[in-house]
Amino acid sequence: MTTLPYDPARLSVCAADIIANTRELAALGWTPATSSNFSMRLDDRHAAITVSGRDKGKLTDADIMVVDFDGQPVATPHRPSAETLLHTQLYRRFPEVGCVLHTHSLNQTLASRLYGGAGHIRFEDYELIKAFRGQNTHQTSMDVPVLPNNQHIPTLAAQVDVLLDAGSIWGYLINGHGLYAWGADMAEARRHLEAFEFLLACELEMRKLHR
Amino acid sequence: MTTLPYDPARLSVCAADIIANTRELAALGWTPATSSNFSMRLDDRHAAITVSGRDKGKLTDADIMVVDFDGQPVATPHRPSAETLLHTQLYRRFPEVGCVLHTHSLNQTLASRLYGGAGHIRFEDYELIKAFRGQNTHQTSMDVPVLPNNQHIPTLAAQVDVLLDAGSIWGYLINGHGLYAWGADMAEARRHLEAFEFLLACELEMRKLHR
Amino acid sequence: MTTLPYDPARLSVCAADIIANTRELAALGWTPATSSNFSMRLDDRHAAITVSGRDKGKLTDADIMVVDFDGQPVATPHRPSAETLLHTQLYRRFPEVGCVLHTHSLNQTLASRLYGGAGHIRFEDYELIKAFRGQNTHQTSMDVPVLPNNQHIPTLAAQVDVLLDAGSIWGYLINGHGLYAWGADMAEARRHLEAFEFLLACELEMRKLHR
Amino acid sequence: MTTLPYDPARLSVCAADIIANTRELAALGWTPATSSNFSMRLDDRHAAITVSGRDKGKLTDADIMVVDFDGQPVATPHRPSAETLLHTQLYRRFPEVGCVLHTHSLNQTLASRLYGGAGHIRFEDYELIKAFRGQNTHQTSMDVPVLPNNQHIPTLAAQVDVLLDAGSIWGYLINGHGLYAWGADMAEARRHLEAFEFLLACELEMRKLHR
Repeated sequence: MTTLPYDPARLSVCAADIIANTRELAALGWTPATSSNFSMRLDDRHAAITVSGRDKGKLTDADIMVVDFDGQPVATPHRPSAETLLHTQLYRRFPEVGCVLHTHSLNQTLASRLYGGAGHIRFEDYELIKAFRGQNTHQTSMDVPVLPNNQHIPTLAAQVDVLLDAGSIWGYLINGHGLYAWGADMAEARRHLEAFEFLLACELEMRKLHR
Repeated sequence: MTTLPYDPARLSVCAADIIANTRELAALGWTPATSSNFSMRLDDRHAAITVSGRDKGKLTDADIMVVDFDGQPVATPHRPSAETLLHTQLYRRFPEVGCVLHTHSLNQTLASRLYGGAGHIRFEDYELIKAFRGQNTHQTSMDVPVLPNNQHIPTLAAQVDVLLDAGSIWGYLINGHGLYAWGADMAEARRHLEAFEFLLACELEMRKLHR
Repeated sequence: MTTLPYDPARLSVCAADIIANTRELAALGWTPATSSNFSMRLDDRHAAITVSGRDKGKLTDADIMVVDFDGQPVATPHRPSAETLLHTQLYRRFPEVGCVLHTHSLNQTLASRLYGGAGHIRFEDYELIKAFRGQNTHQTSMDVPVLPNNQHIPTLAAQVDVLLDAGSIWGYLINGHGLYAWGADMAEARRHLEAFEFLLACELEMRKLHR
Repeated sequence: MTTLPYDPARLSVCAADIIANTRELAALGWTPATSSNFSMRLDDRHAAITVSGRDKGKLTDADIMVVDFDGQPVATPHRPSAETLLHTQLYRRFPEVGCVLHTHSLNQTLASRLYGGAGHIRFEDYELIKAFRGQNTHQTSMDVPVLPNNQHIPTLAAQVDVLLDAGSIWGYLINGHGLYAWGADMAEARRHLEAFEFLLACELEMRKLHR
């Protein structure tokens, strides 16, 4: 009898949550061409994450695998996404983070390219800033960092660590690539993801309109 | 035996109506990141309203609560939205108002920011102006007021009172925030909300096109 | 026993067809705020048409009525849309027309306003021109007329008659208002409607892009 | 007893796959006005393909037919699309191609017109370039060819042959018309199609934004 190093009941619950939410995000067009990946914390050493390369609109239990916080597969023959390390670095660093969502929407890609040179995009005076944990007024500004893209994920992860050292954030963009957003649980991570997407869309449309 | 100060059968009907309509509005993307709130009049002292912070695409009966017209919770431990007063001021002031819908669509947010300085946005020569109660021709203009945003809701409510004193309107925008729209019942409030959204979209697109 | 002047079995079939198609068009957002109306020919004197003011996403049999070709209600207490005459003038004039669809999409409204001054909008070199009956090449151009809006429907109908005298068309725009499209049956009218909508969207986007 | 020259069980599987995928593409609005066509390889001499002129959102088994690699109907009275030859030339030329998808989205049509003069549109520095088979970095560029439209399909096919001689591609645009995309199977062809659509949308939006 094999003893799994994680709780399979907890995995079942997380897999169901990931599948349901990922289908909704796929229906919005935020996961084109099998891109994007999604994870939830299982315990203080393991996370459930989507298997690489699957159609995110049609996930089943077989498309969810377990990794440790070094990004290595646990008790599974599946290959995790190359970007798994960008998920697990957040779980390792922040015990309060329970869910990480990485999407590739059109607005996220466009904003990352337009503001990649500046290194960040600023949100100011939007009521929806209050959707982020810890914000209680629109009379503030928040900067979303934009990192250069890199196929060497440990390099990207090191750049993210520098960002995380610099202050509290709930997400970042990678240039030409997409958004990472996170939260205490799936509900909070989704709320943050939706707020990022909405505010990025606002900034892009304002560029078209405000001339 | 507890006696409720409102008719629970009427609450059931209103809750079902709010839930069904709010899901449709959420599916349109008009309630991002758990924003927006929705209410219906129960009687001449009470309204049913959505509980603060819930995902508007997944409401159930447990997400609808009762408030009095001072915005205070009635026979419930739930916390109403901070903006409840903007709903109840309309029920208190206008006996013919039966439903108030507050949404945060992209077009509403963009229009509120672009026309916040002017204090209003004008619709002219659109057939859809006839969707507003009391309008029977396109050969007219109507102004949608845009208020500055404020985290102190009584201040916002006082500004709305000034607007309502000035003339008959079916909705207003708050800068960087969203739209309030209302009507005699859910069907009329929805019709007004859809007409506002459509005409705001027209005005924004015309800015991009008419150059 | 009442004898109806039309075949109730034919009405049933047409009502089901109108309801199914109208729901799909409503889901696309082409019928905002209870606008738009839809009809099918019953015989050489009658048509089935949507009752005025109903939510087009939720039609039932009770929302379909019969009118004669003068636009008068037949064997029903319902009020037809003020624009019924714009449907029946097509059935009266063209025995081969079996279905008329009138929608209010954003693109239709925007195009009608931008090209209202010119009186038409021209489609050229699009493969989708072949979706219109009688067209078999993209190497052609077709003009969609744009009429000024008018609350006096007989005046509008007289202007349409002048257009119809001038040559074969499958639809026209009314300024600030929407599109009329028609065909031999529901399938052809839908195909024409979808082609108009697509080509209008192309022309609007090209204005934004081609600078 | 008639002996079919292809395996009817394989046809059943392919028909189901085509129908399910085509409905999803129709729901995205990529097949307006009964346009577009879709095929899968049956064996080394036959392909299953959609019958001409059907509503792509409502396909059934009766809307799928078999053609040989000269584009001729096999054991069916149905007429294949005039463009069938553009599908079969790929199956004939590349034994590894199992699926060809031809769509008419707004973005595909717009990009084809804007870049038709240049003869190609270039994608550069997008993470999603990795969605195409054989690509493993974003630090590259790929060109999507744009052919002039032509009602004489053998002429178009000859131009495509020149493109295919010039190097490995997974799709091309036809001016004012739409996109052809392909892959080893339905999943890969869909992934390529979605990546083309997303990257075309990015390039179009960047033109509007990057000024």
